[in-house]
Amino acid sequence: MKIVKDVAEMQRTADEIRRSGKRLGLVPTMGYLHEGHMSLVDEARKNADVVAISIYVNPTQFAPNEDLSSYPRDFARDEKLAETRGVDIIFAPSDSVMYPHKQLAFVEIEEVSRVLEGEFRPTHFKGVASVVAKLFNIVKPHMAVFGQKDAQQAFIIRKMVSDLNFDVNIVLAPIVREEDGLALSSRNIYLSEDERKKATVLYRSLKLAQKAVGDNERNLARVRSEMLELIASQSTGKVDYIDFVDPDTFSKVEDVGSLERVLALLAVRFGRTRLIDNMILETRPK
Amino acid sequence: MKIVKDVAEMQRTADEIRRSGKRLGLVPTMGYLHEGHMSLVDEARKNADVVAISIYVNPTQFAPNEDLSSYPRDFARDEKLAETRGVDIIFAPSDSVMYPHKQLAFVEIEEVSRVLEGEFRPTHFKGVASVVAKLFNIVKPHMAVFGQKDAQQAFIIRKMVSDLNFDVNIVLAPIVREEDGLALSSRNIYLSEDERKKATVLYRSLKLAQKAVGDNERNLARVRSEMLELIASQSTGKVDYIDFVDPDTFSKVEDVGSLERVLALLAVRFGRTRLIDNMILETRPK
Repeated sequence: MKIVKDVAEMQRTADEIRRSGKRLGLVPTMGYLHEGHMSLVDEARKNADVVAISIYVNPTQFAPNEDLSSYPRDFARDEKLAETRGVDIIFAPSDSVMYPHKQLAFVEIEEVSRVLEGEFRPTHFKGVASVVAKLFNIVKPHMAVFGQKDAQQAFIIRKMVSDLNFDVNIVLAPIVREEDGLALSSRNIYLSEDERKKATVLYRSLKLAQKAVGDNERNLARVRSEMLELIASQSTGKVDYIDFVDPDTFSKVEDVGSLERVLALLAVRFGRTRLIDNMILETRPK
Repeated sequence: MKIVKDVAEMQRTADEIRRSGKRLGLVPTMGYLHEGHMSLVDEARKNADVVAISIYVNPTQFAPNEDLSSYPRDFARDEKLAETRGVDIIFAPSDSVMYPHKQLAFVEIEEVSRVLEGEFRPTHFKGVASVVAKLFNIVKPHMAVFGQKDAQQAFIIRKMVSDLNFDVNIVLAPIVREEDGLALSSRNIYLSEDERKKATVLYRSLKLAQKAVGDNERNLARVRSEMLELIASQSTGKVDYIDFVDPDTFSKVEDVGSLERVLALLAVRFGRTRLIDNMILETRPK
């Protein structure tokens, strides 16, 4: 496994791989790897001859009040995990490699960056889209894997790729959950033991939504109320939002209408830990 | 010479060229080619084995009140000129190829897009940077040539390339002028015979600035006044701006200070035709 920390070396390495006719896959991460990331690596392996992961906690996607400084980091552990899973290249740049000068160029995805997560984290997706654009230009992958866990991020990256003509095939990998349903996240380590137990209510509320919609409930405001009630009754979590969108356009919907699938997304805070989760609800369209 | 109109075909063509070990150069244009563009082609030829030009009048860089609909177009003529000059590939997409869906992803270069041209054309550089990002992702050049004529655009593209890590070497080519000094521009055909004669005052005002600074004038406000006076006395041109910037940072300067070179830029309107020009002034730093 090769570890690359420099932009020019990574670009040269990518050029060599591409010229040899091999397909290069990228899994962008912020490190502190878990089985969710590893499932992305497996997905990349299915589609690429050479699998690279990037490990970089990108400051521009954190707001000043957010957890940039406390975000968990453990490169030695990440390196071991990646090696074990057959990763070929780790691209692990420093801040001064990624942002050597004052950054003025940003990629913004209008409209969809402003809703849901974007309402609570107004500069977040600008930072995400811009760093992913940088990573695509540095690692030059044929394909990249993103987790469905960050559903809005995945949508935004696909929109960026399509609108800006990046020649990168985006593959989404399903959410990986603990046995009790909690979606894997590097941020789960912030949770106290009690919070950790109660955090399963996110998944249970999504399953409740799936059941309601499967039972032919059409009114999503009513589904939201049931979810809010469940979360309030079984935890101290504070709900930032529970929203339903058309997964193909990310526009909010309040009624199932003729959609075959509705994406339910939520963000809930436990103390200072903010968790997000989502589920594609299979409806029974008329 | 190959003419490509489709994104996927251009990307495939680029991949083949790159895999064969050849260097690919790009000259992005809006067509209606003149000797200025041809000098960019020559510059690309010096640096690349395969020279592509793109011909695309990009709507997103025109404001609603600007000359998108009247911008001169003549593909047959462009094709002949390009062929004669040894261009290998013309990438000439339609609007529906470049913008098949509602475009939401844009590249913005903060600060420097707001001054000079950006004050008079507030959305212009957002459109320019975004379409150049698209063209880089479609044509995948090793190097691209831009004209010093659009000095602020060239600065912005270089900042985009640096900040977003595009692996594209940007080469600038000097301004090509008519015998009487008027900088070549596709927009010159808008000028009436009388306006065309008087438009040489732009170049003469820049030469005046060069002479003043060469004669050790340090105060650029005074230089601006002299230029304004010359333009007012010898034409009916309306000055949008005359500005001086540090060519390395594009920040405005009002005094030569310790700079060895100052970039003087101006925009002047003749009737409905807006002309821009610029010159790097060699100073005599103390």
